[in-house]
This record gives sequence, C-alpha cells and structure tokens, in this order.
Amino acid sequence: MFEAAEVGDKVSKEAFKAEIPKLRTALLEAQRALAKGDFSLIVLIGGVEGAGKTEFANRVLEWLDGRGLEVHAWGEPTDEERERPFFWRFWRILPGKGKAAFMLNSWYTDPIVGRVYKKSDDAELDQQLDRIVDFEKMLAGENVLLVKLWFHLSKKGQKKRLRELEKDPDNRWRVTAMDWKFHKKYDRFRKVCEHALMKTNTTHAPWNVIEASDRRHRDQTGTKVLLEALQKRIKQGKIAVERSPDLPKPKPKNIIRRLDMGLKLGPKEYDAQIERLQGRLGLLSRRLRDEGRSMILAFEGPDAAGKGGVIRRITQSMDARLYRLMSVAAPTDEEKIRPYLWRFWRALPRVGRFTIYDRSWYGRVLVERVEGFAAAEEWRRAYGEINAFEEQLAGAGTIIRKFWIALSSDEQLRRFKDRQKTPYKQYKITEEDWRNRAKWDAYEAAACDMVERTSTEHAPWVLVEGNDKLWARVKVLKTVVEALEKGLS
Amino acid sequence: MFEAAEVGDKVSKEAFKAEIPKLRTALLEAQRALAKGDFSLIVLIGGVEGAGKTEFANRVLEWLDGRGLEVHAWGEPTDEERERPFFWRFWRILPGKGKAAFMLNSWYTDPIVGRVYKKSDDAELDQQLDRIVDFEKMLAGENVLLVKLWFHLSKKGQKKRLRELEKDPDNRWRVTAMDWKFHKKYDRFRKVCEHALMKTNTTHAPWNVIEASDRRHRDQTGTKVLLEALQKRIKQGKIAVERSPDLPKPKPKNIIRRLDMGLKLGPKEYDAQIERLQGRLGLLSRRLRDEGRSMILAFEGPDAAGKGGVIRRITQSMDARLYRLMSVAAPTDEEKIRPYLWRFWRALPRVGRFTIYDRSWYGRVLVERVEGFAAAEEWRRAYGEINAFEEQLAGAGTIIRKFWIALSSDEQLRRFKDRQKTPYKQYKITEEDWRNRAKWDAYEAAACDMVERTSTEHAPWVLVEGNDKLWARVKVLKTVVEALEKGLS
Repeated sequence: MFEAAEVGDKVSKEAFKAEIPKLRTALLEAQRALAKGDFSLIVLIGGVEGAGKTEFANRVLEWLDGRGLEVHAWGEPTDEERERPFFWRFWRILPGKGKAAFMLNSWYTDPIVGRVYKKSDDAELDQQLDRIVDFEKMLAGENVLLVKLWFHLSKKGQKKRLRELEKDPDNRWRVTAMDWKFHKKYDRFRKVCEHALMKTNTTHAPWNVIEASDRRHRDQTGTKVLLEALQKRIKQGKIAVERSPDLPKPKPKNIIRRLDMGLKLGPKEYDAQIERLQGRLGLLSRRLRDEGRSMILAFEGPDAAGKGGVIRRITQSMDARLYRLMSVAAPTDEEKIRPYLWRFWRALPRVGRFTIYDRSWYGRVLVERVEGFAAAEEWRRAYGEINAFEEQLAGAGTIIRKFWIALSSDEQLRRFKDRQKTPYKQYKITEEDWRNRAKWDAYEAAACDMVERTSTEHAPWVLVEGNDKLWARVKVLKTVVEALEKGLS
Repeated sequence: MFEAAEVGDKVSKEAFKAEIPKLRTALLEAQRALAKGDFSLIVLIGGVEGAGKTEFANRVLEWLDGRGLEVHAWGEPTDEERERPFFWRFWRILPGKGKAAFMLNSWYTDPIVGRVYKKSDDAELDQQLDRIVDFEKMLAGENVLLVKLWFHLSKKGQKKRLRELEKDPDNRWRVTAMDWKFHKKYDRFRKVCEHALMKTNTTHAPWNVIEASDRRHRDQTGTKVLLEALQKRIKQGKIAVERSPDLPKPKPKNIIRRLDMGLKLGPKEYDAQIERLQGRLGLLSRRLRDEGRSMILAFEGPDAAGKGGVIRRITQSMDARLYRLMSVAAPTDEEKIRPYLWRFWRALPRVGRFTIYDRSWYGRVLVERVEGFAAAEEWRRAYGEINAFEEQLAGAGTIIRKFWIALSSDEQLRRFKDRQKTPYKQYKITEEDWRNRAKWDAYEAAACDMVERTSTEHAPWVLVEGNDKLWARVKVLKTVVEALEKGLS
C-alpha cells in the first residue's frame, strides 16, 4: 500500500506557485457549496509522525474560510470520556450539515498505537477495525463526507524529517522524545498501519495515501484529493431518497400476539411485590458507581401502554440524582443536521448513572418506518447500526434492557376514552394518538421485526404484557432488578 | 429566617387527599402552558439534610409530565468541569424555553459547605454569594423563572428524621455517615445558611423557606409555591420588550479616533518581527497546559478590518490541536432558547487550550444594539453580565485579551472594492457589509462605549491600528505573547 508513496514525487516551487491560486479559488467555492449543501465534511488526516499533518492542516485552513470549520485532536481521554464508549469523543464533535471538521488524530489512533505497543493482539485490532468500518459506513449513509488522507514517509524519510525539524529553531519543539521512540518502531508501525488501511479501505470511505517527503507535493496532492472529493459530492447534489410509509402486515402468530394478555396481579400482591422490588432496586442502583457500570433502559410500546407509569415506579425507587429521563420528542435543529443516533450518544449516562429513554432510537424502525419519515434504505440499515451502538455500550460496561410494553387494541381504546374523561389526563391524548391507532397493524408488525433483529444477549428486548398495569410494572421492575443482580458482581 | 419554619405546621391526611387532585390538575395545566411559553423553569431545591429534597422531587415529578423535564444533582466535579469556571456545570444544563430543570443541589452547595467546613472565610463566601446574585439576576432577565425552595428542619427535627429513616429498611440507605457528621454541625450550618439565604433573597429570585417536619405539609406547600410562581409568570405572558435600533453618535475625540491610523510596518521589518513572535508564541502556547491555564482571544472590528488574517497568524504559530476557532454566526435554535451567553460558555476552552472568537459575546452591545436585535434593557445590562463572565474566567485561570481592530472608513471602502475585484475574495463581501457600513458612526460609538465599560485589568481591550495589516498583525501577536509571558510563571 505504501510503495507507491515512496517514489520521490516532487512539485517544483514554480509549478506550486502557479497552481495555488486556482486551487484556493476552487477550494473556497467548494466550501461555500458545502455551507449550503445537505452534507457535512470530515477530513481525517493520518500518517507517519513527522509527515506534517499539522502543517498541512494549517495550510489548508489558511486557504479556507475559517467559519464553520473546526480542527480536532485528542489527547488522553477525560474522565467523562473514559466513562463512555470509545466512539463517544468522536460523536461529540460530529459536524452538522454545511460544516467541516479536520481531525489530526482519530478513531484509528488508539487501535494502531495499541497494536504497535502490543497492548492488543491481531484479533482485537481486527475487531476494532470492523467497528470503524461500520461507523464510517453509517457516516456515509447519514450524509457525512469522510475524506481520509494518509501522509507517508519512508523510514529514511522520517529520520531525515525529524532531524530537519530539530535543526530549525522555530520547529524544534515539534519533535519530542516520543517521536524518536516511535521512529525506532517504524517497521512495526508500518506493518500495523498497512493492515489497518487495507481493512478500512472501503468504497464509501477510501484511503488516499500521499507521499509526504516533499512538502509542496504533499500539500498540493492532499488539497487536490480533498477538493475532488468535495466537488464530486457537490455534483451529486441533494441525494434523493424516497421516503414513503411502509405498512408491514403482522404475521398471524407473531411474538406480540402470543403474549398472554390476560396476565394480571391483584392490588395486594402488587403492593407487596412492588415494595420489595423497589427496595432492592434502590440498593442495587447505588452499587453501579462502585462497579464502574451504568444502565440504560429503553421503553417502547403503543400510546397509552403505561410507559410513564412504569418509568415512575423505577425512578421512585432511586435517588433522583442517579437517573436521567429522556423523553424523545422532535429533534432540535442541531440534532436534525447530524446522524440520527447523535442525540442519543449525547445523552449517554456516566458511570454510576441510569438513562431512561421514554421512546428511543428505535423510533427509526417504528414511527419513522411506518410514517415514512425515514427511507427504506435508512430504516433497513438502522437495525445494524443500532446493534453496533448497543454493542459498544455493553462493551463499555453499560447494562441495557429494552422493554416493549404491549397492549391489546381494545384496551388501548378503553384507555383513550378514559383519558378523554379525566381532566388531568386529557393532555395525554391527542389527534396523533388516534392517527397512530389507525395504523395499529403496521406498528405491531414493525415492532416484531425490531425485536427479531435487535434482541441481543447484551441488549435483550423484554416483552411486557401491559393490559394490566400492575402486572406490567412488577414485570419491568423484576427484570431491571435481575439485570442489575446479574450484571453487578 | 428559619423561625417561621419551626412552628409545627401540619397537613392532615384527609386535607392532603382532598387537595391533591386539584393541585395535580393545576400543575399539569401550568406545565403545558410552560411548554408553549417563552420562558424556562428552574426549581432549585435546597435545605437541611433529611428534609426530603429527593422525596419531594420524586413526588412532584410523579405529578408532572416527564417530558421536557430533567433532574440534576452534582457530585465531585469531573476533570472537564474542574478545568473551567465554577458555574460551567450549571450553564451546561440550563433548560431551554418551554423546559424545566429540577436541581437537588446547586450553586449554593459548594459555597455553603465550604464555609461550614471552614474552607472559606466570610469575605470569600460573600463574594461567592454576590456572584450568585448576579447570575440569578441574569437568569431572570433572560426569561428563566427560578423558583428557590428551602426545606427546613430544626436540629431536633433533623435528628428525628434521620433516626426514622434509619429504622425503615427501604430508606436506610439514604442516611450516610456524612449526614450524621453534618448533623453535628447543625448550628454552624444553620448560621451559614441563614446568612446565605438573606444575601440572596432578591426580588427576582426570592427564597421560599418551607417547614419540612411534616411530609404532607412540605409537599403541599412546596408544590403550591411552585404552582403559584408558574401561574404568575404564565399570566405575564410573553414579556414585551421594545427592540429598536440604537444609533449612538460618536464623540469627536473618542478613543478610536485618537488612534494613529498612519502606523505601519515595512515588509522586511514585518517578516523579521512576525517570525520571531510566531516562534515565541509557539513555545509559550505549549506551556499553558503545564501551568493549568487557558487563553481566550476575542476579535471585534468593522468588516474587512483583517480579523481573519490576524487570527491566521496566531493559529499558524501553534499546534492545531491547541486551539479552537469559533466564528460567531447566527445562533442555532438550541442557543436561541437560552440566555445569550450560553453559546459562549459552551465553547470555553479546557486547560492548556486556546479559544479564539472571531466576533464574540460583544455582539450583544455592538450589532445587537445598533440593529435593534436586543432591547435597550438587554444590551445595557450586558456590560455587567459580560464583566461577571470574564471575571469568572480569569478567576479560573484563563488569560483573556480582546482586540478591536480599527479601520478608517476610507480604508474599508478601498478593501471592499478590492474584494469585489479578486475572484477568491468575492465571497467575503455581501450586501450586509454595505448596510453595516452605512451605520459606521453608530458602530464606532457603540465600540467606544463597549471598551469604556468592559476593559478590565483581567480582560483588557487592546485597540489595534488596522489600516496597515502588517502593523496590526505584529501588534496583536506582540500583545498575545506578552500576555502569555505575564500570565505564565
């Protein structure tokens, strides 16, 4: 992969000078089109130490309009980052549509460095690279243009560059002991990088390996690659996706219909059980922190299924400072201009905390599918994206349980009518609820697909017979308590 | 202050039961009005340990619609919080219009606990309380309704409550060794709290001290206070502020006109100086982190003053990962629904980092004043709010410099015309620039007012003669270098 970047490509001073004004103008034009476009740009700059990633970034930034543009580089993770999945720090800075981010290190840095220093083995590296491929595919699908540049220097070239920098009083500080230490591991580094680049060199996010021994060649080529990628994307224009309602039909004996909706609890039994469960939950909830764990509970189900009531039985049991309730409503404009999972990554709990989602990212494959807010290709790939998301959460120590509170159609009708009659419940019933009800079958079928495709060992779906509220509350609490008992040592 | 909350107020079970349905309905109605209103709600719940802050919050949350509502409590600051001013953690969670936040501890906690444990003296406590008064005044001005509840228990009452909780198996966990330790300091705690509450009992954010020995009385009274505050605010409706352009006239010999706009540098002298300064800046910039400091640079000035060019000379000198350039454009909708300083608090640098603002919070007293986007009462109080903001930054170790890049009217015209002629500069000149130019005098006078009222020792304004770009760049870099040399040990 790197041989082609060791051929000694150079650009003369004159050629460079002649080229630059044209490049600048074109680049600025492309940036202005980006600002008005419906995609965002991430320029990922990787490569060998000493190849001039920062130098290149500074030059291109000088040529661009600074507005709507950020440069990122990450050092040691902060404690807020450490308490969340690896990708959280990158989600935090995802640029919105029309904006650009330059990254001087990235999701490649830790996997590569970890392997070079033998903190991980080949299998672990490959697993990390698989996650990267998934992540970049999601970005591409969600209208983030990712341009990946890799600046290469041969071993000799790196040594020469580091020596050069050391001799220059203005740039001496750029060379640290770390760089020389790294230089000694050049061959190993190269091998790991070659493997990483090969595995992540995908159609939707290809690598551009650029010879960096001549600065002018590096900057001109890097800029051209960026420019061409931008121009190509701009030409595509608004990527037309067809969004139309998808109204799947439920199978006759699906998992929801097989639920025994007659299950119920008497008030006395309920009182006895709920009190005991709440007590246990209270105790368990305070142990999360010490064990470096967090918990996510997601609730879905038809309108009036009693999600709110269930959630209150949980929140009542614990210290209010331990949980955050996220009720999913319409996204804000900052959320709308980013991949749809962004708003959920934003709200991830720290260690020791619960985040309870009253409706969740599953909206993508439920309401967005049925109502046609998401295109078929969008909600179809969402199953995989969601599984990858939850796998990362679980890997970072988050205990996850997802609840589908089921309800029979008759019982929903009864509750709707009851809500209309009770003054302080009236706000709970809207036109939209009636409209959703008309699509009962499609929602049920979509829910079955969802459970089938996203119930995993680390993030299982729990179907709850919700016709009897008391039964439902006890079942959910029991599940939460058991999940905690199983998850905590 | 607390005597009135030790009279033994009680509410009978029957009275409570009779009252609750009415309270719930009214509360929900008020919450729905809030959701549509143009203000946000913060309920600050303070008081004696054991008085049931969490219990109260859980009960009220049960009565409210969980949507648009968050509960916050803070533990030890995270490292990201520690690296920023004290109030940052509270700014982070400020609810937007239509939303509510319940706080189980608050900006009062640290000042009070610090004084009780003698980590601060009376003067320091008073200074902290003054800041709180300023902060709460700002909230009130920016349409945040702050309801402050204080749950009181007498010393005997606290002892009784803690014992009671310890006896109850479900609630035993709520009582920690800390609580008993705190109980021993009851008298001291009471004295400090009394002082704190007196000093912060203002018209715009009064305290409501509530007797908490009887749970029903506590919950009913607390809810009523909250309800009445909400209803009163809702009745006020959209607070009408008159927004009209303010076009101040410049004084004949103002600070901007007294600048010697003929100052300039030859290209050779410029090259020599800028290179030396950039080298020094590069070295100094890397020392910020070790010394636990950060730096904020804000740039204001007429269109075409050369802010971008100056900023690039700074960013060129340092590692791109050390700085973040924030170009201030139109606020997003998440920003629009919060106090105007929110977007700047959001972007505050961590230790070791620079944030460079290309236009800044001073927009409030410049463009928003002149164009009438802010009402007179809004931009007038902004001077004080901004000074308080910068004082906090400086107190947290941030080195601040603010630059006004001055330009003569003739030179601006010359640059506008030049931009129209040069292809890759054309994007820089818009209709708006010409419109702003027509209000030259008003902008100049507003800038003079701004410098006069917000140039402080810890955050001085530096006026830069900008007709000669080379002169301006060197002057700014010199100022930044000297500020760092002075600020770093």
